[in-house]
Amino acid sequence: MTTSEANFSTAEYQDRVSRTQAEMAARGLDLIVVSDPSNMSWLTGYDGWSFYVHQCVLLGAEGLPIWWGRAMDVSGAQRTVFMPYDHILGYDDSFVQNPEKHPMSDLAGWIAYNGWHQGRIGVELDNYYYSAKAHLSLLDHLPEARFQDSTGLVNWQRAVKSPQEITYMRRAARIVERMHATILEEAEPGMRKNDLVARIYATAIEGADGHWGDYPAIVPMAPSGLDATAAHLTWDDQPLRRGESTFFEIAGAHRRYQCPQSRTLFFGQPPAHYLEAEEAVLEATLAGLAVARPGALCEDVARAFNTTLNARGFEKDSRCGYAIGISYPPDWGERTMSFRRDDKTELKPGMTFHFMPALWLNDGGLEITEPILITEDGCACLTETPRTLYIKD
Amino acid sequence: MTTSEANFSTAEYQDRVSRTQAEMAARGLDLIVVSDPSNMSWLTGYDGWSFYVHQCVLLGAEGLPIWWGRAMDVSGAQRTVFMPYDHILGYDDSFVQNPEKHPMSDLAGWIAYNGWHQGRIGVELDNYYYSAKAHLSLLDHLPEARFQDSTGLVNWQRAVKSPQEITYMRRAARIVERMHATILEEAEPGMRKNDLVARIYATAIEGADGHWGDYPAIVPMAPSGLDATAAHLTWDDQPLRRGESTFFEIAGAHRRYQCPQSRTLFFGQPPAHYLEAEEAVLEATLAGLAVARPGALCEDVARAFNTTLNARGFEKDSRCGYAIGISYPPDWGERTMSFRRDDKTELKPGMTFHFMPALWLNDGGLEITEPILITEDGCACLTETPRTLYIKD
Repeated sequence: MTTSEANFSTAEYQDRVSRTQAEMAARGLDLIVVSDPSNMSWLTGYDGWSFYVHQCVLLGAEGLPIWWGRAMDVSGAQRTVFMPYDHILGYDDSFVQNPEKHPMSDLAGWIAYNGWHQGRIGVELDNYYYSAKAHLSLLDHLPEARFQDSTGLVNWQRAVKSPQEITYMRRAARIVERMHATILEEAEPGMRKNDLVARIYATAIEGADGHWGDYPAIVPMAPSGLDATAAHLTWDDQPLRRGESTFFEIAGAHRRYQCPQSRTLFFGQPPAHYLEAEEAVLEATLAGLAVARPGALCEDVARAFNTTLNARGFEKDSRCGYAIGISYPPDWGERTMSFRRDDKTELKPGMTFHFMPALWLNDGGLEITEPILITEDGCACLTETPRTLYIKD
Repeated sequence: MTTSEANFSTAEYQDRVSRTQAEMAARGLDLIVVSDPSNMSWLTGYDGWSFYVHQCVLLGAEGLPIWWGRAMDVSGAQRTVFMPYDHILGYDDSFVQNPEKHPMSDLAGWIAYNGWHQGRIGVELDNYYYSAKAHLSLLDHLPEARFQDSTGLVNWQRAVKSPQEITYMRRAARIVERMHATILEEAEPGMRKNDLVARIYATAIEGADGHWGDYPAIVPMAPSGLDATAAHLTWDDQPLRRGESTFFEIAGAHRRYQCPQSRTLFFGQPPAHYLEAEEAVLEATLAGLAVARPGALCEDVARAFNTTLNARGFEKDSRCGYAIGISYPPDWGERTMSFRRDDKTELKPGMTFHFMPALWLNDGGLEITEPILITEDGCACLTETPRTLYIKD
């Protein structure tokens, strides 16, 4: 363990492992190869920016998980995971980014050593950190195994948050509140965009209420004016301008838990249609939040939101929310449920979402969003960031 | 294009495309599917934090590249790529993170539409952003195509930097110099680690010499004391302590070009063996830099470094450097050449590397590293950051 306390009790990790193994049993899986860093961390506590090389957690039908990665990162694993040292395996540095030898050949050896080579193996086929080559290499080295797509298997176990996880989400919420307050306080016409982002970043990492800020899984997205018709531009050094809107899609993070929230800033008097869009989004947001309660389906939230928005003459053709929790780059979403048509997932207490009713208009973007927690009888916004278009003179 | 000027001239992009097409011809490829965001950006100018969804650049044997991605990101592509709008294709939002339908089925349709479906297609099999599922989906939808591994094909074209690229690397070098100066100035015993990282980050994004800072492709790694025996821990809120070392592995970035550099800070009087390690590393660094010149091989640099280091009684079993340039998370390396045994790549003027002679000792880490440029007759360090162990009282 690191010099700080562990993020969760061993009992909590054990419980996560047991629930995951129950789902594996239901699918007839003898082993899962967990490559998603968020899933690796959730199952074992592993932390470190080492996911640019191949690594994974092996979890069998019973017993503790095994961490496998680059030998250089074994020490990091020893300092962060809850398992004993003999559940940590490292491969030689000559396997790193070397077209001549793939680290999956080493992993296949360990899978065989543990007797899983003739078993049914779940792999996260559609994860960033399980490349096509990694899969082909495993297939090649384990000809007797039967492979099954287990993308999302662990992600779904993460959907309902524990009390300790909710505590971390709330700390991250305090941080993103402070980040938006920083923007409102410090942004001025003429200020270089990157100087403002520098201030946002510093606030994010200082943290709030005595709790330190971790790195958000996505960097601040902060496009202005016509650039804000694009959803995922980051920043440059162009000055903030009067008569222009800028949206800030940012997250606070604490111990890898992410609390994203967006606000939009306008210098001067916004055009009438922009204020109409704000009014429509705010009304549609209330409609969406009103149905976000245990028993409702994800699509119900989207329908309530879209019906209200459409009645006001605006349209949004992308999802208006997604599950959030622990995360590593490149995404702060959990990649399970979305608020959109045909998502029949039932909401349960303890689920957390980024309710994300962003509009990208022809002449700029409008993002006023809410991280929410499903409670026993409805939902709660995690922040008290004022829900409005920020207007400064 | 964005409101800022383009990062490179259209002629430079055209030249990159032509060189890549020449290599494709040499390998008999009719089409490459380029999923690596760094390669996408280098070939077309595309920028945006959208790589958490499937996207790529299609490049045929002749003609301009085609950008393909989420419909929401088409506007971002229109504002950043050098090609005309009819070379930008978007897919419907219902494909996003939806287990029922994979976006590669849409891409396969475009590949067929362009007549490439019976061709020889190169794919980046071992890239983060080309998942196993993406590959299986393409195979499934393009049964007549022949697939070939083209991991690294574009990366290798990037190895020798253009004058404009070197200008951006030098600006990033000024930024990382300033980041290290910030550490030396502001770090004090008792300071929370995250507060120091907040200052480092702010400096990174403010930039230097009037040039704005972009986000580094890896967040600061800054472990102290025993945590620094681990290579890739990030930070927490533990205070900096007297009698303890902390290494800072950080990068300055400008327009996505990355200049990584590490330094190590010690409060108080370092133990004798730690100073011996410093002396050994500095001497071995000089030995490595002395052979880093056009005509030498990557392994020659590693051999010179390791021979000198071993003579001093220290060992390093991982590579001591790798190519750098334009990059997106999760890695700031180019994933081509490394300074290590058996890498026979010949050094050429215009190549850039992170010479990375880090030692992870049993009781702490020592990193004093140099970003370098291979020149006509040797190599040049890109920064003037003092090459020494930082000692503060």
